Amino acid sequence: MNLAHIGCALVAIKNIAKKMTNHPLDQALHLTAGAEPHTFIGATSPAYWNMVGPFGGYTAALAVRSVMQHPALLGELVALTVNYAGATSEGPFVITATPARTNRSTQHWVIALSQTNAAGEQEVAMTATAMTAIRRDTWHLSDMPMPTVPAAAQVERDASVGTMAWLNRYDMRSIQGGIPQQWDGSGDNTLSQLWVRDIEPRALDYASLAAMADVFYPRIWLRRATRVAAGTVSMTTYFHASTTQMQEVGTSYLLAQAQAQAFRHGFFDQTAQLWSEAGIL
Amino acid sequence: MNLAHIGCALVAIKNIAKKMTNHPLDQALHLTAGAEPHTFIGATSPAYWNMVGPFGGYTAALAVRSVMQHPALLGELVALTVNYAGATSEGPFVITATPARTNRSTQHWVIALSQTNAAGEQEVAMTATAMTAIRRDTWHLSDMPMPTVPAAAQVERDASVGTMAWLNRYDMRSIQGGIPQQWDGSGDNTLSQLWVRDIEPRALDYASLAAMADVFYPRIWLRRATRVAAGTVSMTTYFHASTTQMQEVGTSYLLAQAQAQAFRHGFFDQTAQLWSEAGIL
Repeated sequence: MNLAHIGCALVAIKNIAKKMTNHPLDQALHLTAGAEPHTFIGATSPAYWNMVGPFGGYTAALAVRSVMQHPALLGELVALTVNYAGATSEGPFVITATPARTNRSTQHWVIALSQTNAAGEQEVAMTATAMTAIRRDTWHLSDMPMPTVPAAAQVERDASVGTMAWLNRYDMRSIQGGIPQQWDGSGDNTLSQLWVRDIEPRALDYASLAAMADVFYPRIWLRRATRVAAGTVSMTTYFHASTTQMQEVGTSYLLAQAQAQAFRHGFFDQTAQLWSEAGIL
Repeated sequence: MNLAHIGCALVAIKNIAKKMTNHPLDQALHLTAGAEPHTFIGATSPAYWNMVGPFGGYTAALAVRSVMQHPALLGELVALTVNYAGATSEGPFVITATPARTNRSTQHWVIALSQTNAAGEQEVAMTATAMTAIRRDTWHLSDMPMPTVPAAAQVERDASVGTMAWLNRYDMRSIQGGIPQQWDGSGDNTLSQLWVRDIEPRALDYASLAAMADVFYPRIWLRRATRVAAGTVSMTTYFHASTTQMQEVGTSYLLAQAQAQAFRHGFFDQTAQLWSEAGIL
């Protein structure tokens, strides 16, 4: 029994080692098991730094990675909600990823990222819930066809805005709704469409897909063509792609589209979709 | 110090007593503080029963009510994600609603509903996260104008489908995309629009708004015009309305609209919007 268990552990370690690459995202997402059950230890990476903390997509990818690395994981990722509770500081963090309920084919996760603050207390910077499930081959259909847009090769790459490190991790090609050229308050809609992929080629997985779902700059900048302080507070992503479908995408571009529904009382929402070049949502 | 504390407690109890009405929703949402910190005790109500458990909107409203009743609450509800982890059984339950992080103007909550199962173990049936915040008066705009539809008074009330108790709690008037009349596989789109309000008049609040965000029957029934087993697994709601705006709505109708984006691997998503008769999202 103990021998079998050791055997399993070795297999698991071998798989993780095989998956670990030198890609900046994998380095930034490197987690080791903590002493307490359901805990993982990691540290932020300068490669995905935003203005006052890491790029929100990276934090979402951390939540995904902790679940994917949990020994009790059942199935593939279906839904993820990430709440940004406070700024994540540079340095180490602890993630707890607890399977709150495991059914026959679905599993529900509660996730939190904590750091020790200046006063020496543990402070929560991110909460999340996720659902994983064994995907079955059922009737399927997308009611959100990919919009007709020029191919990625025909669209010029966006000039890097420079100050934020994470922007240099992505090859982004805006089709419409790029970052305003003139900050003159003239914005009139909130639709953005762009092609996106990792600059350093990396095969798509749930962690990188979760990160790319947050590449959009705040809708309010687009709508008002005015820079105002804005941050993502909550992001929900539904994953319609299976592991096989992501392997088919590999390192090619995804079409990303975002639009806001309402701005009020200092908060706004945005809905986003990502399609593969083959048109799969 | 102790006297002041008692004074505060009395005020709080008085306010809660004033808010408690005989409305079926308030009876179903009645929660008392548990012995452990952050816990609330309640019991399911036959008035909001669905097929194999309570109506999902009621479970979402329970998450809202627990946060609204928590003594540490800061501000108003902004975002809520509810995950249905397993069937809730008839009878008592415990809700934990923990403020994971409190900032100057925002607060992040982690919520879970548990019941004792047949084996005598505590089992999680729902997990949720919520964000509350002090709303400020900022620039506001809705990029999702209310669709042009006939007034509620001009639309006939849907015939009650009968078997599910919760359907008798709502006055629903389908404008388009009503429950299919013929289960012949002929469905061709997934858009539903309906007017909805509590049958027994009740002033709108965050709990009832959260419940109404889940009044839509599964999109897959509409798209395929075929009844298949389907249940909500995860629902995210963004609340753009302030308490004042909800008071203005009072007991009048809301226009509810839902559409699905993709069906695949046994899961599908739907996005929904609710507008007041005055056109406020």
